[in-house]
Amino acid sequence: MSDHRPLPLLGAPQTERRDAARNREALMCAAAALVAEHGAAAVTMDEVAARAGVGKGTVFRRFESREGLMGALLNQSETDWQASVISGPPPLGPGAPPLDRLRAFGRSRIEVTLQHAELIREAGRVGPRSYAAYSFTAMHVRYLLAEIGVTGDLPLLATAILAPLEVPILDQQVRIEEFPVDRVYEAWTDLVGRVVQR
Amino acid sequence: MSDHRPLPLLGAPQTERRDAARNREALMCAAAALVAEHGAAAVTMDEVAARAGVGKGTVFRRFESREGLMGALLNQSETDWQASVISGPPPLGPGAPPLDRLRAFGRSRIEVTLQHAELIREAGRVGPRSYAAYSFTAMHVRYLLAEIGVTGDLPLLATAILAPLEVPILDQQVRIEEFPVDRVYEAWTDLVGRVVQR
Repeated sequence: MSDHRPLPLLGAPQTERRDAARNREALMCAAAALVAEHGAAAVTMDEVAARAGVGKGTVFRRFESREGLMGALLNQSETDWQASVISGPPPLGPGAPPLDRLRAFGRSRIEVTLQHAELIREAGRVGPRSYAAYSFTAMHVRYLLAEIGVTGDLPLLATAILAPLEVPILDQQVRIEEFPVDRVYEAWTDLVGRVVQR
Repeated sequence: MSDHRPLPLLGAPQTERRDAARNREALMCAAAALVAEHGAAAVTMDEVAARAGVGKGTVFRRFESREGLMGALLNQSETDWQASVISGPPPLGPGAPPLDRLRAFGRSRIEVTLQHAELIREAGRVGPRSYAAYSFTAMHVRYLLAEIGVTGDLPLLATAILAPLEVPILDQQVRIEEFPVDRVYEAWTDLVGRVVQR
């Protein structure tokens, strides 16, 4: 037996686990709301605890650190976004023509990435890219390119289309160079048009 | 007077300054040679000092830390590369048709970036992109696109062409996914072909 979990007990431990799940959910919601209201940089663990109605110790027990909490918010947001690509309404989700889906993907990814940029800064994970998140987008774009009928080195063309949507690049364009998001999206759509028409 | 440097003295201090410059040069050359031989990760400050024929204290006085030395090597390499773009032989330097220069730029940038990826890791600067280095390449690619006669949002098209050449992306393709460098270059050339033909 490689699984050494104790046998499930009735009573107290189960309640504890249920309480823990409830606390986690409350903390995530409170943190997400505070981030939306004040920006990730301004959010403190004290505020998150107060908003969720739990003690500060509980926040640290759940997430270890402020960075851990920001990382958890980031993962949750990425997971939600992936779900909307896989099974949400078209054109981001299935059911629209592949080029429409690709354009919707770009628009949506730009927005999500800009929201994530701040969380990533606060989570202290500016450097390493999330390989899992990258793999998901790469596979999706590669699939759409094939559906559109694009020929060529699709894995690398997919990477090329995705590269301008990476956090440091979008963050620089929008936050430092102050390009309007619409302009960034239009330019990305133009790039996609050039890539697929051949 | 906002400049509080002491008046230049004759004799000892000047010699000291000349010695310092000579030491710095010797240390940079020694470090570059060791990096080329063993890879940046394997190079120690002791080895650099021994190779340059100076005491270990001198290395730390010049570069403060191992990270500082790696950062100095990185800056030197980037400066040398920029000089070869500005005034080196064609097709990377001036004198070749703009599309040939753009292709040579890509080939050369891929090679330089892969060399830099290791130095950047060792310099502990994986996260923030070097804005100065980025600005140089963005300006150069934008200029070449205009020379080629490409129309559109050239600053953003230049960014899109440059994005797949960023350190984390190339590093992942070549080091993690183990794509051959030639394949990466061919795919980039294909991307450029699609972008400029319209």
